Amino acid sequence: MTRALTVSIDAMGGDAGPGVVVSALLKTIQRHSDVRFVLHGDEAQLSKLIARHAALKSRCTIRHAPERVSMEDKPSHVLRRGRDTSMWHTIDCVKAGEADVAVSAGNTGALMAVSMFNLGIIEGISRPAIATIWPTLKGQTVVLDVGANVSATEEQLVDFAVMGEAFAHVLFGLAKPTVGILNVGSEEQKGNDGVKGAAGILRNSNLPMAFHGFVEGDDIAKGTVDVVVTDGFTGNIALKTAEGTARLVGSYLRQSLKRSLMSRLGALVASGALNTLRRRLDPRAQNGGIFLGLNGVVVKSHGSADAVGFASAIDTAIDMARADINARITADRSRISAESAGARAGEL
Amino acid sequence: MTRALTVSIDAMGGDAGPGVVVSALLKTIQRHSDVRFVLHGDEAQLSKLIARHAALKSRCTIRHAPERVSMEDKPSHVLRRGRDTSMWHTIDCVKAGEADVAVSAGNTGALMAVSMFNLGIIEGISRPAIATIWPTLKGQTVVLDVGANVSATEEQLVDFAVMGEAFAHVLFGLAKPTVGILNVGSEEQKGNDGVKGAAGILRNSNLPMAFHGFVEGDDIAKGTVDVVVTDGFTGNIALKTAEGTARLVGSYLRQSLKRSLMSRLGALVASGALNTLRRRLDPRAQNGGIFLGLNGVVVKSHGSADAVGFASAIDTAIDMARADINARITADRSRISAESAGARAGEL
Repeated sequence: MTRALTVSIDAMGGDAGPGVVVSALLKTIQRHSDVRFVLHGDEAQLSKLIARHAALKSRCTIRHAPERVSMEDKPSHVLRRGRDTSMWHTIDCVKAGEADVAVSAGNTGALMAVSMFNLGIIEGISRPAIATIWPTLKGQTVVLDVGANVSATEEQLVDFAVMGEAFAHVLFGLAKPTVGILNVGSEEQKGNDGVKGAAGILRNSNLPMAFHGFVEGDDIAKGTVDVVVTDGFTGNIALKTAEGTARLVGSYLRQSLKRSLMSRLGALVASGALNTLRRRLDPRAQNGGIFLGLNGVVVKSHGSADAVGFASAIDTAIDMARADINARITADRSRISAESAGARAGEL
Repeated sequence: MTRALTVSIDAMGGDAGPGVVVSALLKTIQRHSDVRFVLHGDEAQLSKLIARHAALKSRCTIRHAPERVSMEDKPSHVLRRGRDTSMWHTIDCVKAGEADVAVSAGNTGALMAVSMFNLGIIEGISRPAIATIWPTLKGQTVVLDVGANVSATEEQLVDFAVMGEAFAHVLFGLAKPTVGILNVGSEEQKGNDGVKGAAGILRNSNLPMAFHGFVEGDDIAKGTVDVVVTDGFTGNIALKTAEGTARLVGSYLRQSLKRSLMSRLGALVASGALNTLRRRLDPRAQNGGIFLGLNGVVVKSHGSADAVGFASAIDTAIDMARADINARITADRSRISAESAGARAGEL
């Protein structure tokens, strides 16, 4: 491409409004000196917000979108009536080749529907997935699918493994990420037909990944593998169960520390450390969902993201575009299909 | 029954050996003055252990079992070759009517296989489930199935709701427990066919439960409902993901508190509170799995349970037997079947 890497941004998507988006962009331009932005949303409001920041203003194009998608709008409604929303314009801008990646903090279901409708799915991949970055004892692990689908066949789980491996390669810089399939036990004979079939295909493949086999729920936070593959039903429930558990433990901690004068005093002295812990567990500090498998890079920031969270989502999108993640996904998927065809022919 | 309530105990099942079992029984006899025990395991070892405790000795019968099931034994192997194990004898004792309930800290898969083979399933229930008690912001919630099956049809999810409702009634003393089905969203149109079908049946039933509809992963720890119903694949992964998350948060907390002199000092002052938190998150303090749907009450204690954990599993088993939980499950299941038949006839 001859133009600078360009990020298409839904400036009206999050709960906090466009002010947070502009604060995030001020962080992004400090890290990336050569990136441009197209902002979609209320032109008057956006112009006013960026007018004060000359460095940002020179790198932004504002496109007016008269409407916005709310958190309550159903995906089907947005597909029928959402063409004038900032979300639709944000994705359409990537489709038209005017931007390389899209970032929105809007309604996840609507964003996936609008992205699939406008960008389509990578050839050879049957369904897109939503990936998330999970904090672990060892660092970070990619988990997918966390909610794009309510089930997955063995072939779809293999697609998710290919996409997760490409993502871990690009984001974590790993040559051969370790990949595990989430299951109810680590032994080969455990689980349902989908996970057993997918494990069989991955065990015999020559992809640039180290296939670990099955992992269990507690292996996610242990960091046993770099990529955890699961269907969107199980993955979404695991993710939300983990969020709920972290909040429960935080609440137990506060209760314990309030119980006696000594423990209150201890908490006061250790308040710096406890604030660090709170920030580490704050979902706003984590990335939202990364949409994989589409003809275009789309990153969903948390609806409640602050400037730090939104800037982190933009960073992820830029890294994915720079590394051309979709080229890797396409190549890996073709390799697996060719291997499967070869194996079938060998059986004749 | 004319004899005292009798608990059949696998004294060789846990990691810690029969010493822990005997310590647990010493706690149990302080709470329950009228309960008897049949202990299965190495007679010489067990006789020696209870010889010192006259009050316990008078209420125990020891039955020699020459073998034991290890944590690595496959269920199919135990079914073929396990008739001389302490686990088999423990369940057989309930089957023979010599005991009312069974408790073991042994291998979960083997215990379920041996229990199903010997006791059979309650008429009208298609599959047994494993329930667990989950700590929440409001108190406790029953979650099932957490691993007896790798999938569940809508009818099986309805069975699990019936069994979970009966359990919450018996254990928590609730007249009309609230019941939710675990899903990827709380809206009616979300999820796969299994959860939507089960929700439809429960919404129209007249069971003694308040059917709440769908709940999400974070609702478990929030305590949104008294009973959370899910398939064994998702439930097992949710449970282990929660365990992994609790350990991760604990590790973050320790790291934060070690970071500076001030935070170390604070941790020292608040050490009592932090120990309370550690105990609250210790899986040994929780009950293990409660097997529901069998013609007999079987409770699986954690393999690593100490005396407190094992005694708590015995308490649960005693409560279930006293309240005749299976009579309630049978009655509720018949009511749902009759309602469904009535609804079908009404459509003619």
